[in-house]
Amino acid sequence: MKIPVLEIFGPTIQGEGMVIGRKTMFVRTAGCDYSCSWCDSKFTWDGSEKDSIQLLEPEEVFDSLKDIGGNTFGHVTISGGNPALLKQIDGLVDLLHQHQIEVALETQGSRWQDWFTKVDDLTLSPKPPSSGMKTNFTTLDNIIERLDKEQDGHFSLKVVIFDQEDLTYAEQIHVRYPFVTLFLQVGNDNIEASEDDRLLSDLLDKYEKLIDLVMENKVLKDVRVLPQLHTYLWGNKRGV
Amino acid sequence: MKIPVLEIFGPTIQGEGMVIGRKTMFVRTAGCDYSCSWCDSKFTWDGSEKDSIQLLEPEEVFDSLKDIGGNTFGHVTISGGNPALLKQIDGLVDLLHQHQIEVALETQGSRWQDWFTKVDDLTLSPKPPSSGMKTNFTTLDNIIERLDKEQDGHFSLKVVIFDQEDLTYAEQIHVRYPFVTLFLQVGNDNIEASEDDRLLSDLLDKYEKLIDLVMENKVLKDVRVLPQLHTYLWGNKRGV
Repeated sequence: MKIPVLEIFGPTIQGEGMVIGRKTMFVRTAGCDYSCSWCDSKFTWDGSEKDSIQLLEPEEVFDSLKDIGGNTFGHVTISGGNPALLKQIDGLVDLLHQHQIEVALETQGSRWQDWFTKVDDLTLSPKPPSSGMKTNFTTLDNIIERLDKEQDGHFSLKVVIFDQEDLTYAEQIHVRYPFVTLFLQVGNDNIEASEDDRLLSDLLDKYEKLIDLVMENKVLKDVRVLPQLHTYLWGNKRGV
Repeated sequence: MKIPVLEIFGPTIQGEGMVIGRKTMFVRTAGCDYSCSWCDSKFTWDGSEKDSIQLLEPEEVFDSLKDIGGNTFGHVTISGGNPALLKQIDGLVDLLHQHQIEVALETQGSRWQDWFTKVDDLTLSPKPPSSGMKTNFTTLDNIIERLDKEQDGHFSLKVVIFDQEDLTYAEQIHVRYPFVTLFLQVGNDNIEASEDDRLLSDLLDKYEKLIDLVMENKVLKDVRVLPQLHTYLWGNKRGV
């Protein structure tokens, strides 16, 4: 079965999360089971770019990555949408590993796929209240339990924080899964902003405020607080 | 033996390297075997603050950390200067571990200490040519070999990049130790700058240029390119 792909780009840095700064290529799949209010990639699920979806075999994705990235990369990030909807990513993970290329995945933790166990850097990013989505904790519990037992690589949790309710949700996550590294990420609610200077000072201001809240927090002890570095560098531009 | 301490502060985020974003307390020791041209903590070795050095037992360092950080933290970063000059850090590492507090260390890799094997997050940052220092690769080889065999936690390499020669040095490091995660960090040569806005745009500009160089580089494949986040937030201010 072919993979519905919306974007392939890189090499660039991973701007967020557990391998922040990592030189990587991106493969962005189409389709999502969520519709977060502040999603920065709505085009993956709102139908606006459905004519741009390419249906590709794993070999075709790999060829495209090599066409664009040449011999400069050793890491590929699969993002979405929610790539966890796609059983057929399995073949792509295997193909990349055959070429000594590591694989990262970003997914919200709403669906399990057996190929998760082969992913080198797996980020589970359950969505906080501000997203408008509800976390199914039975599903998330099962996914984390299986990853903890069966995964070869590393996995972490990431929660985007827009407000105090989101921070309370992050506390719940940290208490529920204390053995999983938790990344707190500054929410960007200026996804339409084009004035990069104002966006930057706004984002830095939000980052500092989040740091202040987390530093005094006694529940959120073993956490990492990070921005999205790509927004500092390139604003809301796509494909970088 | 007591530990010569120049600063204890936090909790704040670790602004750089392998645990970037981590909520941590900092203990900065006095004294260094190096004198890097662009050192951002010259006061630890140039004598300018020698009257501020406190000689503290591990228990006194711990009490001071608790006084300042209360019950908000689970991670302490030991920085310098070069803490690897101090055999007596051993007792501090043990004491922190007894209290379920993780320990990070930053050192240039010019000296070995047996307590390295107990450090949870150990960064070796050999200094590139722009520093004016020479790396003793026999020593560094030995340290990396021992860490690889004996360390309980994680370790990584970090090279600060100011110019093309530094990048060539980073390539040598990556080829010599391909199995160790390599962090490339943007050099900050405006350590005296006080106009934060100009410093920020200058640092972002340098970060983007370094990314561009690394992305097209075929030797530097499995690397992570990061800024110093604390300079984005707080400029060159100390104690944050």
